[in-house]
Amino acid sequence: SDLLCFVPVGRCKAEWRPNNSPKLMDLLDDTVPGIGTYEDFNTIDWVREKSKDRDRHREIANKSKQSTVALLFSISDAFSGWLLMLLIGLMSGALAGGIDIAAHWMTDLKEGVCLNGFWFNHEHCCWASNETTFQERDKCPQWKSWAELMVGVSEGPGLYVVNYFMYVCWALLFAFLAVILVRAFAPYACGSGIPEIKTILSGFIIRGYLGKWTLIIKTITLVLAVSSGLSLGKEGPLVHVACCCANILCHFFTKYRRNEAKKREVLSAASAVGVSVAFGAPIGGVLFSLEEVSYYFPLKTLWRSFFAALVAAFTLRSINPFGNSRLVLFYVEFHTPWHLLELIPFVLLGIFGGLWGAFFIRANIAWCRLRKNTSLGHYPVLEVVVVTLLTALLAFPIEYTKMSSSELISELFNDCGLLDSSKLCGYTSNSGSTSGSVNATAANGLGARLAGPGLYTAMWQLALALVLKMVFTVVTFGMKVPSGLFIPSMAVGAIAGRLLGVCMEQLAIRHHERDIFRGWCSPGADCITPGLYAMVGAAACLGGVTRMTVSLVVIMFELTGGLEYIVPLMAAAMTSKWVADALGRESIYEAHIRLNGYPFLEAKEEFRHKTLATDVMRPRRGDPPVSVLTESGMTVEEVERLIADTTYSGFPVVISQQSPRLVGFVLRRDLVISLENARRHQEGVVSMSPILFTECDPPMSPSAPPAVKLRSILDLSPFTVTVHTAMEIVVDIFRKLGLRQCLVIQNGRLLGIITKKDILKHMAQMANRDPDSILFN
Amino acid sequence: SDLLCFVPVGRCKAEWRPNNSPKLMDLLDDTVPGIGTYEDFNTIDWVREKSKDRDRHREIANKSKQSTVALLFSISDAFSGWLLMLLIGLMSGALAGGIDIAAHWMTDLKEGVCLNGFWFNHEHCCWASNETTFQERDKCPQWKSWAELMVGVSEGPGLYVVNYFMYVCWALLFAFLAVILVRAFAPYACGSGIPEIKTILSGFIIRGYLGKWTLIIKTITLVLAVSSGLSLGKEGPLVHVACCCANILCHFFTKYRRNEAKKREVLSAASAVGVSVAFGAPIGGVLFSLEEVSYYFPLKTLWRSFFAALVAAFTLRSINPFGNSRLVLFYVEFHTPWHLLELIPFVLLGIFGGLWGAFFIRANIAWCRLRKNTSLGHYPVLEVVVVTLLTALLAFPIEYTKMSSSELISELFNDCGLLDSSKLCGYTSNSGSTSGSVNATAANGLGARLAGPGLYTAMWQLALALVLKMVFTVVTFGMKVPSGLFIPSMAVGAIAGRLLGVCMEQLAIRHHERDIFRGWCSPGADCITPGLYAMVGAAACLGGVTRMTVSLVVIMFELTGGLEYIVPLMAAAMTSKWVADALGRESIYEAHIRLNGYPFLEAKEEFRHKTLATDVMRPRRGDPPVSVLTESGMTVEEVERLIADTTYSGFPVVISQQSPRLVGFVLRRDLVISLENARRHQEGVVSMSPILFTECDPPMSPSAPPAVKLRSILDLSPFTVTVHTAMEIVVDIFRKLGLRQCLVIQNGRLLGIITKKDILKHMAQMANRDPDSILFN
Repeated sequence: SDLLCFVPVGRCKAEWRPNNSPKLMDLLDDTVPGIGTYEDFNTIDWVREKSKDRDRHREIANKSKQSTVALLFSISDAFSGWLLMLLIGLMSGALAGGIDIAAHWMTDLKEGVCLNGFWFNHEHCCWASNETTFQERDKCPQWKSWAELMVGVSEGPGLYVVNYFMYVCWALLFAFLAVILVRAFAPYACGSGIPEIKTILSGFIIRGYLGKWTLIIKTITLVLAVSSGLSLGKEGPLVHVACCCANILCHFFTKYRRNEAKKREVLSAASAVGVSVAFGAPIGGVLFSLEEVSYYFPLKTLWRSFFAALVAAFTLRSINPFGNSRLVLFYVEFHTPWHLLELIPFVLLGIFGGLWGAFFIRANIAWCRLRKNTSLGHYPVLEVVVVTLLTALLAFPIEYTKMSSSELISELFNDCGLLDSSKLCGYTSNSGSTSGSVNATAANGLGARLAGPGLYTAMWQLALALVLKMVFTVVTFGMKVPSGLFIPSMAVGAIAGRLLGVCMEQLAIRHHERDIFRGWCSPGADCITPGLYAMVGAAACLGGVTRMTVSLVVIMFELTGGLEYIVPLMAAAMTSKWVADALGRESIYEAHIRLNGYPFLEAKEEFRHKTLATDVMRPRRGDPPVSVLTESGMTVEEVERLIADTTYSGFPVVISQQSPRLVGFVLRRDLVISLENARRHQEGVVSMSPILFTECDPPMSPSAPPAVKLRSILDLSPFTVTVHTAMEIVVDIFRKLGLRQCLVIQNGRLLGIITKKDILKHMAQMANRDPDSILFN
Repeated sequence: SDLLCFVPVGRCKAEWRPNNSPKLMDLLDDTVPGIGTYEDFNTIDWVREKSKDRDRHREIANKSKQSTVALLFSISDAFSGWLLMLLIGLMSGALAGGIDIAAHWMTDLKEGVCLNGFWFNHEHCCWASNETTFQERDKCPQWKSWAELMVGVSEGPGLYVVNYFMYVCWALLFAFLAVILVRAFAPYACGSGIPEIKTILSGFIIRGYLGKWTLIIKTITLVLAVSSGLSLGKEGPLVHVACCCANILCHFFTKYRRNEAKKREVLSAASAVGVSVAFGAPIGGVLFSLEEVSYYFPLKTLWRSFFAALVAAFTLRSINPFGNSRLVLFYVEFHTPWHLLELIPFVLLGIFGGLWGAFFIRANIAWCRLRKNTSLGHYPVLEVVVVTLLTALLAFPIEYTKMSSSELISELFNDCGLLDSSKLCGYTSNSGSTSGSVNATAANGLGARLAGPGLYTAMWQLALALVLKMVFTVVTFGMKVPSGLFIPSMAVGAIAGRLLGVCMEQLAIRHHERDIFRGWCSPGADCITPGLYAMVGAAACLGGVTRMTVSLVVIMFELTGGLEYIVPLMAAAMTSKWVADALGRESIYEAHIRLNGYPFLEAKEEFRHKTLATDVMRPRRGDPPVSVLTESGMTVEEVERLIADTTYSGFPVVISQQSPRLVGFVLRRDLVISLENARRHQEGVVSMSPILFTECDPPMSPSAPPAVKLRSILDLSPFTVTVHTAMEIVVDIFRKLGLRQCLVIQNGRLLGIITKKDILKHMAQMANRDPDSILFN
């Protein structure tokens, strides 16, 4: 009997071959609706999806030779990917522009309103005014603060109190609206979305996560959340918004609608688009998608992502939300080259960034776990309102927390010009030009950079702002409103960097005759740019939290446009990553993925433990053997009972229970649908009908009930490993090929099965057993 | 008997388990020297190499817990990768700087010599002079042309003839020296090296290709070849030089010396370094390595490549070979924004680039094939000399072919300033400011850009130069001297672009009152930048030849530093790639790989044919069954005879000939070495000694000769597919996991084997059968 099963391929249906395997054709024809689709919260089978796409492509290519219409169709099909990218770019760019404009306006609404038209924001309102002076660009009679408008006072403590009160009220209103909208219409709209998008890109299905309701609600609530002054940013959520756009636009293209793998290629590109519009950095966006988010990123996607990211960036620029026709969020130009010795403070900033990253991840995860496990999680609205109240109350008195985080970062990055009115530029030459005693020093040239009283105040306020930002960022990220952490992280780093930069500057100026400063700080020239320190600090903190490397440096490079400053950024980013990795191996996104228990197989970390497939496979030693179907000889009833008794998502098919030689693998969902279909539509099928997975029908008595033939849903080429295969290789296969399960055989006999979940469980176990193997990556 | 073979794993050596599979430990111990190494012109086994590295890492991690010295060693091991990157960056940057300086000097040597010191090049010589005027920067009394020096004439036809003669002589001398050196010392130093590096990175072994002789000779001959004025560039060879540096430096690090997979990670980074120093574009270099060259490019390598590329770029800048302290090869700054309608000429340039790419690849491959198949190939020295002679003879009379290609490109990219003395800027306002009739127009503003007679001459010369460059580039690439084609391709495109740009400019100026130009070319402002057209043309032509996409655009972006001009570049690069792909699917590198028959499995192109594993596996239907070893029962003599009779590089091991159930796979090389070793060192081994691959020893009579136990060289987890597995999936597995071979089973029985070569052969067959499936990628 052993030799009998050894039939050449396609013996029964020889006329189909070559170039037409029956199984795939059946799948294509989709005779039974539902076969080949996935349930919610399931993992897709990358291999099958890619096969489906290749079949589809082959069919189109074959047809295109037959008629001109089909040829035109095939050409339009080939270019539909580019069209889709164009549309995603346009839509995301437009949405991002809208969000920017709305958030800007609503942020200013907390302070006052424009008399010329309530739809103008503060800056816009004063542009139109011709009474604005250069020194006080943001003061014009058309712009009224709430106190001026409501109680008519324009000075004194009354003004302050009323403004304070209105600021808090507006913040509460915005935050309350945001959380209520999220709760009522789209629970998936909360958070940054990047952990979930990573999981989705790795092959998981979360229905509705990228749907139209999520898009609408996320867009609206993002504006509300940003305007409320909470310590959150819009950059992460913009990635989510772009992915929603992509997912919705995919519906209009059959090629992408019906193939989960192709859809994920588009989503990878969309996440590049998200970062591209967030920072105005298309190359950095593509690298972010490649490095941080994507799972399967073929070169074709690289090129298309780049195209989409560019389209989006230029759409955003033509909307011009920042009013400066700059593409980038924080445009900076530095004029002073950096000195080699400055690498020391840059590395220090890197260490600070790494420490902050590690602390933030631990604290935030602990807080989220608390929310999850205690009754705190039952009052999301209350939580948001309380946090907003506290943030607003504490933020208003300090100038640097009152302004929005992105304004703050802009100001911190900025190099002080001569006419700068910012307090951060409160040097003696600016602030005290009337006092004769200072003039002497100012003439010296170096004195122009001596700190004046304004700068000292600013420093104290910044230090206070740093502490507040750190605390509030920890509690804010993870609340039920859209919240990104790029901007808050960068703000923390920028404050720290600016503080260190000013210290260095003052040190250099006061001790410019010392040896180390002499060759570097020549009198009359600036030698230290505190803005650069702020930028390096921002990069370090962002790197510590997200563990981005190349994409981080490239985004920062695109902001400055000078290769000159890549080395400081790189030094800080590297140090930050090393320090953070030494204290905890996960990025914030991975930590949240683990917190939520998503089945995500990390592609960056190598599996380094010396276990074998036999240690991971089910059944374990001593358990009953794996549940299998046989090629023939089982009845409908038996199979239905097996389905009812087990929860496995698929069953191996073997020759017989006695000789468990693997024939193929059948998915539970396909089996259930096929059996239902047979019961309903195939005549004479009863519980005793035999189920056949064989190619040739065995001889049967004519009185027997008709057989249910299921070879078409059988995967004849399941992936197999042997019991001796090292788990490191198994993990590699799962990652690189995107498998859902893999069968374990020994000498041709089926012994067990390994699923993605088994692997994740095993990896978690091994990581707990040996947590400190991180140094050696 | 069937159930007997079903022993649980590790029954005989239960004390070894868990976490210690015997096979891998033996490999680590390396008891028999030579096992686990590869022969020349063989493909490496990626899976095995990566396993070896993980074992090594595990060993170090375990030891590090035992002593402080081991801990320090493990830390230094972890950072050795970074140190290696630093060294590669420094060495490659220094070499590239040296090459630049030497080539610059020797190029000028063809024309004359500096009296202040023969080691000064022309520019350097005249810098020192204080008699140089701004208008004629390159004329100074210290610099003497050969005619002035030798015959004393400084004007008239005699000067021209003598200079002409000397130019040709020097060119011939340089080219002759280059080809003789390559022939005598390092045959691998010829060509660009990128096709071979691609093949090596995909896992092929070519001993000596990246050795020290190749490095030394390639560096010297590259300078000679570039200086000889041949139509070739130094960019491709610089990638080869960087890879040689990397390979040599790998020898100092055990981690990389003894692991072919790890070495290839380093080589991937080195190719990024090569492009980084060639263009001064570190990000573009990394993307080039990712997109064009690398095969296995984990994220860790991305980050390290970036580091190495930056170090190299900054080393090069501190050497400052271009004397302008710019990082990039062609620094350009444009001031005029482009108009949307200009996309039409940009797309035209893209089409030209695509056509040129397709034409160049076909013509060059035809020429190389001719060289290979006819007696032409027997006279490499003569070929180089003749081509150099023709190039020099035809190049000297035309200004734009006489200058080096990179100077030409610089000049073509350049935007005309008011004081520019180049003939390309021969506009009426510059050339004819004396004639009153023109002044009227010049006052208009637009007239400043009207073409003068100088520009017309320049146009004719450029057109001639275009034809010459095209012809000479085709015959030059592939000669036995180091030759890159980045610069010649870019030169062709830059000439075409500049021509089109000037045409467009004149058209716009002469018809500025027409509707289409009115909103765009306002009087008094430049509206078209011919330099931008040159740049776009260069990108298009380079794209057509190499099929680079993102990396191309990013390199060009790094040259200009403005996101502004990415859209034109992208439009041209996209059109160029589409046009070129429609005319022939291979890039020049892939075409050369195929011409030379290297076993390279292209990762970009998807395999889309509907064949099954059974169609590709050996033995074919009707052939005798596959040669196998049995687990036990074979003697030393039988195995030796099997080795002698076949040329397979490995043998499957099965339970018995009657029941061909797969046990494992053994490599021919390992088997030969082990048997030789046993014959030599193991006592009592004779031809009749049994060979055992089993875990447990079968009972044997005491008089029998001792058995040779070879389980340690047996791979117990060979990759298997079923006969039904679609070839598209098999190809995917080979690519992603880097396999050398894969066994084909059906229902647990071994039926055949598929090797990488079988797949390549099959792919070539299928591509020939259906050559026009390119449109639908």
